[in-house]
This record gives sequence, C-alpha cells and structure tokens, in this order.
Amino acid sequence: MLVVMQAHASEEQVRAVCQKIEAMGYRAHAMPGAQRTAIGITGNQGEIEPGTLEEMLGVQELIRVSKPYKLVSRDIKQDNTVIRFAGTEATIGGPGLAIVAGPCAIENREQAFAVAERVCRAGAQFFRGGAYKPRTSPYSFQGLGEQGLQIMAEIRQQFGMKIITEAIDQESLELVEEYADVIQIGARNMQNFSLLKRAGRCKKPVLLKRGMSATLEEFLMAAEYVMSEGNYNVVLCERGVRTFADHTRNTLDLSLVPAVQRLSHLPILVDPSHGTGKRNKVTPLSRAAVAVGADGLMVEVHHQPDLALSDGMQSLYPEQFDELMVQIRQIAPVVGRTVPGIGRQTPAVTARPPRTAAATPAAD
Amino acid sequence: MLVVMQAHASEEQVRAVCQKIEAMGYRAHAMPGAQRTAIGITGNQGEIEPGTLEEMLGVQELIRVSKPYKLVSRDIKQDNTVIRFAGTEATIGGPGLAIVAGPCAIENREQAFAVAERVCRAGAQFFRGGAYKPRTSPYSFQGLGEQGLQIMAEIRQQFGMKIITEAIDQESLELVEEYADVIQIGARNMQNFSLLKRAGRCKKPVLLKRGMSATLEEFLMAAEYVMSEGNYNVVLCERGVRTFADHTRNTLDLSLVPAVQRLSHLPILVDPSHGTGKRNKVTPLSRAAVAVGADGLMVEVHHQPDLALSDGMQSLYPEQFDELMVQIRQIAPVVGRTVPGIGRQTPAVTARPPRTAAATPAAD
Amino acid sequence: MLVVMQAHASEEQVRAVCQKIEAMGYRAHAMPGAQRTAIGITGNQGEIEPGTLEEMLGVQELIRVSKPYKLVSRDIKQDNTVIRFAGTEATIGGPGLAIVAGPCAIENREQAFAVAERVCRAGAQFFRGGAYKPRTSPYSFQGLGEQGLQIMAEIRQQFGMKIITEAIDQESLELVEEYADVIQIGARNMQNFSLLKRAGRCKKPVLLKRGMSATLEEFLMAAEYVMSEGNYNVVLCERGVRTFADHTRNTLDLSLVPAVQRLSHLPILVDPSHGTGKRNKVTPLSRAAVAVGADGLMVEVHHQPDLALSDGMQSLYPEQFDELMVQIRQIAPVVGRTVPGIGRQTPAVTARPPRTAAATPAAD
Amino acid sequence: MLVVMQAHASEEQVRAVCQKIEAMGYRAHAMPGAQRTAIGITGNQGEIEPGTLEEMLGVQELIRVSKPYKLVSRDIKQDNTVIRFAGTEATIGGPGLAIVAGPCAIENREQAFAVAERVCRAGAQFFRGGAYKPRTSPYSFQGLGEQGLQIMAEIRQQFGMKIITEAIDQESLELVEEYADVIQIGARNMQNFSLLKRAGRCKKPVLLKRGMSATLEEFLMAAEYVMSEGNYNVVLCERGVRTFADHTRNTLDLSLVPAVQRLSHLPILVDPSHGTGKRNKVTPLSRAAVAVGADGLMVEVHHQPDLALSDGMQSLYPEQFDELMVQIRQIAPVVGRTVPGIGRQTPAVTARPPRTAAATPAAD
Repeated sequence: MLVVMQAHASEEQVRAVCQKIEAMGYRAHAMPGAQRTAIGITGNQGEIEPGTLEEMLGVQELIRVSKPYKLVSRDIKQDNTVIRFAGTEATIGGPGLAIVAGPCAIENREQAFAVAERVCRAGAQFFRGGAYKPRTSPYSFQGLGEQGLQIMAEIRQQFGMKIITEAIDQESLELVEEYADVIQIGARNMQNFSLLKRAGRCKKPVLLKRGMSATLEEFLMAAEYVMSEGNYNVVLCERGVRTFADHTRNTLDLSLVPAVQRLSHLPILVDPSHGTGKRNKVTPLSRAAVAVGADGLMVEVHHQPDLALSDGMQSLYPEQFDELMVQIRQIAPVVGRTVPGIGRQTPAVTARPPRTAAATPAAD
Repeated sequence: MLVVMQAHASEEQVRAVCQKIEAMGYRAHAMPGAQRTAIGITGNQGEIEPGTLEEMLGVQELIRVSKPYKLVSRDIKQDNTVIRFAGTEATIGGPGLAIVAGPCAIENREQAFAVAERVCRAGAQFFRGGAYKPRTSPYSFQGLGEQGLQIMAEIRQQFGMKIITEAIDQESLELVEEYADVIQIGARNMQNFSLLKRAGRCKKPVLLKRGMSATLEEFLMAAEYVMSEGNYNVVLCERGVRTFADHTRNTLDLSLVPAVQRLSHLPILVDPSHGTGKRNKVTPLSRAAVAVGADGLMVEVHHQPDLALSDGMQSLYPEQFDELMVQIRQIAPVVGRTVPGIGRQTPAVTARPPRTAAATPAAD
Repeated sequence: MLVVMQAHASEEQVRAVCQKIEAMGYRAHAMPGAQRTAIGITGNQGEIEPGTLEEMLGVQELIRVSKPYKLVSRDIKQDNTVIRFAGTEATIGGPGLAIVAGPCAIENREQAFAVAERVCRAGAQFFRGGAYKPRTSPYSFQGLGEQGLQIMAEIRQQFGMKIITEAIDQESLELVEEYADVIQIGARNMQNFSLLKRAGRCKKPVLLKRGMSATLEEFLMAAEYVMSEGNYNVVLCERGVRTFADHTRNTLDLSLVPAVQRLSHLPILVDPSHGTGKRNKVTPLSRAAVAVGADGLMVEVHHQPDLALSDGMQSLYPEQFDELMVQIRQIAPVVGRTVPGIGRQTPAVTARPPRTAAATPAAD
Repeated sequence: MLVVMQAHASEEQVRAVCQKIEAMGYRAHAMPGAQRTAIGITGNQGEIEPGTLEEMLGVQELIRVSKPYKLVSRDIKQDNTVIRFAGTEATIGGPGLAIVAGPCAIENREQAFAVAERVCRAGAQFFRGGAYKPRTSPYSFQGLGEQGLQIMAEIRQQFGMKIITEAIDQESLELVEEYADVIQIGARNMQNFSLLKRAGRCKKPVLLKRGMSATLEEFLMAAEYVMSEGNYNVVLCERGVRTFADHTRNTLDLSLVPAVQRLSHLPILVDPSHGTGKRNKVTPLSRAAVAVGADGLMVEVHHQPDLALSDGMQSLYPEQFDELMVQIRQIAPVVGRTVPGIGRQTPAVTARPPRTAAATPAAD
C-alpha cells in the first residue's frame, strides 16, 4: 500500500499518517518528493485493510501494491504446470497444444457420437459437451444432466478422447467429477466461491473460464480459491469479455495469454466460440490464439448447427474444423508447439485462401 | 427475429431465406425497402434458435426482436409489486422508501448491535449485514456464518428492523431462509442459475443484485429465474457496473432505475456503497438515487470503519448516515415518496453545506 | 513511480534497479517488505518516462504515482472557480445552479425563438443550440453555421440569456468566440489537442465535455491543455460514457461530480440528454444530477421533437422542462444551492407523481 | 427501423403507429406475432429520425435496421481495395502484408536513421514516425513538427520506404500531405469530422485509426466521411479499445479484422504497440494479427527505448523486430499472404522458443 499525500500537506499531516500506520501494526516509509510526499507501507502479511487512512487530513490517494495471489504465481513455482492424463499422450500446458472440441450441449447419443467421430478424426484429444447448461433464460434447454455425462463416458470409451464438461453447482459437480476427466467451471460461476472451493477438493483437473468482466487479478484469485483447497491442476481459459463493442458477442482478449504466462505457471486455453459468438469469426480467432501462444483451443463443433438446441450460430461445421486443424498445424511450430492428435490424421486440405468477399460468407 | 438482407441480394436469395424460415416452422414477412429487403419472423413461442440463417447467401445480419422475459414484465402485470412484511409498516416498492443499512459483515455481537442501534435510530427499517461473504481472496475474512445470522435475529427482536442478508450457496440459503426476512443474492451470483432456482422455491422475498457486467435484459432474466419457480417477491438492486472508469470501484448506473420501472413491475433499490467503493461518494450518490426515483437505498454503515474486517473504506460513519437521512427526507417528497422509519426520529440536523474544498475531505 | 520487485528478486537485482534509477537522474527509495521489495522514485519534475525499467531482471511491475495535472488541481487553487458574466447574476460554479437549455441544433429562427421563449420563462439563464454539429454520418444535417450563431446572438439580445455553443475546428472556433458567451468543446474533440490549445487562447470561458471513454485523469488533463494556454475559465461537463450497457445511449457517470470536486476547483455540469439519449430518462437523471451536487445542468429542449433535425428522441417538451425546473427548485436547497433564473417564474406546477406504469410512458 | 409494440397493445394503437409512420412519409408493415406486433418501416432514403414514435401509446421499443454507411460497404464495391504506391511493389490490401515500423516520435536525425536502417533491413516497406504527437499532457514532448517531416523525407530518399505519419489538425495536415506517402489520422481524432473531411480532399491515402471506444459502425462511418469527399484510398487500423481490463493499456480487438472484412472492401492493419502498451506483448499480438488475417502491421521500434521521448515502454528493440519478421514470414502463408520486404533479407534467425518463465521477461 502506498499513501500519496496532497502537494500542500503539512509535515504534521505526514507525521500523523505515519503514526496511524504504525498504530495499525505496519511500518511507514515516508518519501518526500519534489511535488509531494508518498508513504510506503510494509510489514503486512496479507492485504492491508486501509480503514480510514484515505480520510485523514492531507491524504490524496491510496495505491495498492501487493498482489494477493500466492499459489498461482510464478513467485511460488517458476516452471510451467503441465497436466497429464493417464493412458494418453495428451497434456495441457506441455509442448503439444491441447485441442478441445465438441458440441455446445449434448443433445442425444446420435448427435454426440456424430460430432465426436469428426473432431476425433481431425485431431482433437479432448471432447467437450454440456450436460448442465447455464442458460440466460429459464425457458431454454438446460441440458440432459447425468444422461449427457453417460453419453460422454461412452465417447471416451470408444474414441479415447478425454472428457471436459461443466459443473454448475455442488450436485452436478459430484456427478461431473465421477464421469469426466476435467471439470469445467463456467464464466458465470468464476466468482461462485463455494463452487470453487468444492472444486478445489476434487481429484480431477479444473478448467476455469474467465468471468465476463474479470480482471486478470480476479481471474487468478479465482484459481487461487481452487488451489487453496489443495487441487493444483487448474487450467485457465479466456472466452471473451464484455465491452461496448457489438460486432461480436464478447471481445476476445488475446493479450491475456502472454499476461497470464508472465505472472502464473498455470496453462491457459482460448475459447473463440464463446469469445466471438459468430461462426465466421471462430477460425480466424483460433489461428490468432495459437499464434499468440495459448496452450490450446476450446472450440464448438456441430454436425447440424441448424438443428442445435443451443449456440448453433457459433458452432463450426466439421469440415471447417478439419480446415482449422490444418491451419493450426502450420502455425504451431512458429511458437515452438506441436499438434499431437490421437485420431487418424485428416487427409491434406489446402490452406485457407486469402480474404474473401462478403458475397460468400459461408466460405469464411 | 428480423433478417436483414444485403443490398445486392437477389430475389431468389430472399425467397430461399423465406422458405428456410417456413421450413423451421415460422412465418416469414418480406419487406422490400429502397435499399434492401428485411424479413420479419413471427409464429415463434419462445426465442428463435437462428441456426444457420446468418450463413445463407445474401443475408447481412440477424436482429433479435422479442424479449425473452415474461413474469417480470409489465406486459404481464401492470401495477407495481409492493412487498409487505407482517407486523410492520415497512414495504419495498410502496410509497415509503425502503432504507436498508448496516455493516458490510457481522463481525461480532457488539459491533452489530452498535451499528444497529444507530441506523435504527436514524430511521432504517431494514438491517443488512453479511454472515456469508463472497471475498475475492480465499485468505480474507469469510463471515461468521450461522452465528452471524443468530446475531441478526436478535437485532430484529430488539429493534424491530427486518433482516436482509446474503446467501452464497444452497447450504447457506437454507439457513438464511430460516433466519432472515429477505434473502440477498449477490452480484457475483446473479447468473448462478441453480441458486436462483432454489431461491425461487423459498417463501421469503429475494433481493437480487445486478451482476457487474449484466445488461438490463440479463438482470431481468435472472429475476425471471426466481419467479419462474413461484417466488414473485423479487427486489432488484443496482450496485454499480464495471467500466473503464477508475475514480470509483464501480460505475453506479442510476439510469437503470427508470429503465427497470418502464419495463418491469418489480421494485428497485440502489446500493451506493458498493456502487462507488468510496465513503466520500456514498452520500452524494444516495441523494441522487432517491432523486432518480429508486424505491430505496442499501447503505453500509460502521461505527468504527478503521477496524472493519471488510469494506471499511466504503462504510459511512453513523453521523454521516444521520445526515444522509436528513437529506433524503427532504428529497423524497419531490418524487412523491415518504421516508417512514421505525425508530425515533433523529433530532434536526442542518442540511449539507455546499461543495467543500479538498482540504477538508473528511467532511465530504 | 513505484517499482515493485518480484518476490524472489535477489538483492543484486534490487541494487541494479536502484542504480538504474539514479543513473536516470532520480532518487531511489528501496522498501523491503515481508513478501517483496518496492522501490519508490522521487526527484522527478514531471512524469517519469520509465524506458526499460520494467524489463529489468527481478522487476514485477511499475506503478505510476504522481498526477500529471497542475493548474486544474486543488493543490494549486483551493477555492472553487466561479465564472461570472457581465450584466447578469448568472454564474457557473457559484451557489446558484447554472441551467443551460435549448435545442440540439439551431434549425431556423422560428424554432430557436420558440424554444428560447419557453426555456427562458422556465428559468434557464443559458441558451444552448448547435450551429456546428458533429454528426456520425456525413449525410446528416451538419448545422446552419454562422447563420445559427447570428440567431443565437439575437436570442441573447431579446431574452438576456447567455449563449453556449460548440466549436468543432479552428475556423468555427473563431466565429463562436465572436458570437457566443461560452465556447463548447464537444466529447469527440476532448482530446483534439490543437483545438484545446486554441481555445486556451480565447478570452471567453470554455465548456469542455468529457470524452466517451475518458478517465477522470484524461478529462482533467484536457482542461489542463486549455488552462496551460492562459484561459482559466474552464467548465467541465459529464455527458455519459460508453459501456456495455444498452438500455441508454451512454452511461451517465454521476460519481464523476464528487470526484472532480475533490480533486479540482473547476465547476462541473451534467448533460442528461446526451447522457441517456432517451427523453423519458432525462428528467429523473436531471434530478439526480442536482442531488449529487453538480454545479448545473445542460438539457435539450425542443418544442416539436417530432420535427427535430437531430436528437429528437432525447429532447424534452417545453412542458416537461417546466416541470423539471419545479422539481430541481425543491432539491437544490438540500445541497445548499439556489436556482436563480432570469425569466419570469413559472406558475406553480405540481410535483411529479410517483413512478408511473409503462402504459403511459409519455407522462414520464 | 422496426417498431416493437407492447404485448398488450391494442389494435387501435398499432393502427395509430402505422398512420404516424405513413404521415412521416414512409411505409408501415405490421407483422402480428404470437406475443406482440412488430411494425417494419421502409421507404426511407437515409436514416429515419424517429422523433416521438417511441413515446406513442403501446410502443415498447424502436430497433434500427438500416446501416448508414454506403461507400465503405461491400454493397457498393465487392472487391478488396488495394492501395498501390508508385515506384515500389509495396501495397496495402494486396496479397503482400504491409509492414509499417518505426519509432513513436521522430526525435532527431540520428535516432530516426538508426531505427530506419534496422527496420528496412528487417523487411519493413513503410516507415512510421510522429512529427506531431497528440500527448495527454501539454507538458510532454509534442514532436519536432516540420523538421520531423523533413527527416522522414530523407529516410524515404535513402531507404526507399514509404512514409506514414500523423496529422493532428488542418495546419499539420497540409504539411503531412506534402511530405508523406500516407496521412495518418489518430485514434483521438477519429471523430474530428472537420479533419476527416479535409483529409478526404487530399490526394494521398489516409490511414485511419479506430477511436478508443468506437464501435465498428462508427469506425466505418469515419471512413465514410473521408470517402464522401472523394478520397477512396482509406486504410483502417485497429489499435486497441478501452475496457475495464488493466493488464494492458488497451484491449486489442482482433475480431474487428474479420468483421471489417465481411462488411467493407477497405484494408485493415493492426497496431499491437498501442494495442497493448507493453513491449513484451507486442510480438505475440503481432503474430496473432497476421494469423487473424490482417492486411499488415504497424509496430513501434526504437534502438534505445530507454532514451525514447515517448512510449519507450511499448517499443520493440530492433533485434526483437528482426525476430518478429522471421515469425510472421512463417505464419503469412497459412492465410495466403506473403511478406515482401524491400530491404535485404535478414539472416536466418531461429523461431521463438516456447513460453518462457517470468524470471527472464526480457527474452519475451
């Protein structure tokens, strides 16, 4: 904490603030400057509760200095966290990109298998699909629940992909923990601290999505909640934030990737499907996410977006996902990455042609 | 839903889109304009899942028209919802302003009673205090839990104020429902749909705070979740949203008050304590909230902010709250309101002097 | 400037940063804390250009401390700036509220006089009207230019109101300076530094509107540009900022008023017309602006909004403005203000009834 | 324009709205739906001024449909605009990426030539450098003015790079038009409509930066201002927008690139230097910008960032720029692009290693 005094603050006022700080049990460091005096506070173990310091005579402003996160920080652990999965080479945070794909929601067995077959063949090592859907409207399809989890367990069995799916409360968390390989906490629950703590007592990795208006610090503190309960396998995921911009559903903040990597050892994925909300933007932003250095992608794919029960507008067609995989295989080496894949390799598809005119948006 | 075609879209493309719409089970209304054709869609019961309409040749854009809320809307119920409490004249949504005051967190019996005595005397009919605190850091004080609820129940007993306190998960909700008069759902849980549904099955009124980046529609839809389970006693509360502005902790959006009142019959309070995060801004913004037409205020008061375990910086001193009550008693009649109060009336305090210089910020 | 070191930074790294700071000509103050060391920098005259400090080994973050504004600050001048106008009792920043009203644009002599007559009678001391309109589209009505200024000069002559109108470039500024009493710089030009400097060399007061995404500091720095050229009569004006919220055109940030008043001696008005963009929100937010402590209001009024060439949707009818004046006359004393008025007083109008149902929005 | 009626609006109210629309000279298309009626308006040439429609009984909401831009739109011109420069193969908008590099400000001849030599050698075809600097503070370095332009003209002479530099007002615009190859209009002037119109009468291409809180539509309308005066050679440039996020100076909105390309034929560059404000984020976001499909990059490079008079914190070292060029040469083919370059090719530099730990931020 730094206390900035007003330019015309008297020596007496500076002294009074220092005494107050000492009375609160901290140390005060007065630094007289050309224009004004600033007073540093040290000796605190955690965050300083500033109480009424800001109201004292002569005080201009308080500036917080210490960062409240510990376990997520590179200060504690300098090496990258790499999450491994038994019986597979797939990792999250290792040199191979983690590719997560699947439908927004599991709608039925046929749909889920149809999509799974395609994304596996294209190279995805992780299958995503919602069994519990947090929907803005209580009247929208809310997911199949445990039945959806069972379908995903069968998909793991058949295709070897690891399963990532969202838990929305304590009850669903218990089932997700049982069926899935990675427990997703969605953007709307990023500060559902009860759920975070409960996830922190799970034995499986947690994928934590950034809240719609979460600062980097709040995002890291949410991960800290999970880790503080003993679960160190946390994966962060940027999925777009809320801004004034209205050409996409959210504004995908790719600068978060290098920012997280500078402060934290945790891996970070990017979800361009929710990050843009528009199918024709998913592929370009996926390429950008790999190029910026993300540890992987989370992409929605649906074989019949027209009939999707949710988020059909932002789901790639399987053919588009094939092409996306071809493109990111070419970009990955530039950032020292590989794209492993567990399925059969896709046949060669030609790279994306240059910018197309609006007359043929479907090709974009 | 409205489908806007490109300027150079052919008649054939327009026809294809209309056929697609009809195939989806809706009716299509083509409106040829000077520049381009727009196609209205009707015949839907709920929201339209647009699937791949946007990808069709000649389509420029889709514009959503229908509002998804029903029960919260004045379309359903034109008269204002007024929430009454047995054994008291206090209401929320009636002609009398609802004044909610108390500390951020219940810290111990002495603190809670000291604050309660002061806010009751000044005229608050509702006492607020957190027993379960959603804190950004897992290492911060998280509230006293049930012990805090018991202290508040004693306060109701002694002072006659009704109790409003936050539930953060299913477990705490059960206890809050038992002890409190109004169940608060905090901003971070505004889209915790499981919790909203559970609150919708409670017999007590629910105070729902706006999420940090919630649009008006999302806010109303969160209330719709509660109402869709059968609990129609919902109170909305504006508490500031997240913007680029950094002179306050949040940006208090007072225009939400008339906007809600135009669309919905539910009452709406304003919380200028969280809305600004700074003690010296709470009184001016409280006055503004009453003047804009809010149904009441929710204000943090602490008798010793210096020693507060949370949010000391934004808590009013009891004397400041006294003065605030004097001021809003003068403003209320301008908007056709009264300030009832259940305690003894405060002795006359002179109105706030005009704008003071920065040299004496404590008086502000 | 404060340099925050990483938790595991070595003593050598701290020393290297201190040496670098000294080499840059400043003084370094190392403050070893429990978790990490922070290094204060003093000895700078203006802002510190941090160059490559952030890239040095062991450095976590730089935090800027000094404020770059001087002349706008209460550090320089503790008493409020009050702007007076010869031959009238109207002031801006004095105990009387400054009420500015008029149409968005001057469309013709008849329209301008019709509106002027009504707002003068209701008590406005300042008449606003655009002769040069910054319009988003090049195809929209751009204002009458000098002819509009002449009409406003006649209005001053006839009604005694002082004239406030916008200059959009050097050329229009020269004409506005000649005809008007106060030169307005619009939100879109808040960081048009050439125009600000030129306005700083004018002999007339400058009304500076906050940019759509300007922080408090940037807003004050824009005023500093004007003042640094010698024109100390600057009036600030909050007019809403851009956020994700979509129920109003902009989000009116009333907390800016007490924030400005704490840091600066300059007066600040509020413009709820642009701040909300919707007629039915102008009156509630005007009341709130007075209640929050603003030095005055700037409101759009049109006698035939249906036929307005711009911003018809946000213009009050003259009857609504009458009623608004009645309401703010009641609120002003609560904040130690008066509402002077130069015209005849309006006949008694009854105060606004409580919240009305959506079925009669016109009454709102 | 679409008028959405309330659910309980009477047939009479619908009829009244239709009559009003017809009275305004438009055609009304009523579309009765299951829940409510919507009324489409056609027959307008430009934008509809909605006047008091929203205030009519039974009206819920107005929704704007038509887009106000014409010349910038693919509706007018389906093929991409490609800007060519005499005596060079460099283009903006063609298959070759346009690489613009140079210092934030021209500080002196030595500095400018030192940087120019390096960026030319690495492959930049365009040299950027500020002669007129819009600075937040009036006390900061404001640029060398015409002397800076002369230095850049010499650089063109010696290295063959084309010159891009900013004009901040009419006066500087005349000089910039004389000396430079591309006239830059900065973010703060994106809605300085006088300047845009004046630039529209220039014979040289205009590079227009997105305003800090400009929507896509406002950005395109600013370009429309330039084009409406006859200058069709406009280049757009995304440079980050203002959001709540505080880990970068601005939030770089890469989704704007495909969004622009869908609606407009104009080329679009990305400026990751201003877009992030932090050196260690410039290279990752530059890679992402190429991968997303931008038509080029605008990057700040300084040979001695420590001594830079402005924006030292966000300028790449020449070695970092070399490495960046190596990386984007590898990414460009994936999006069907080439990286031409006019200088000698850089010697082979190895690609960037995977994510580095925070302990060595300088290598990032």
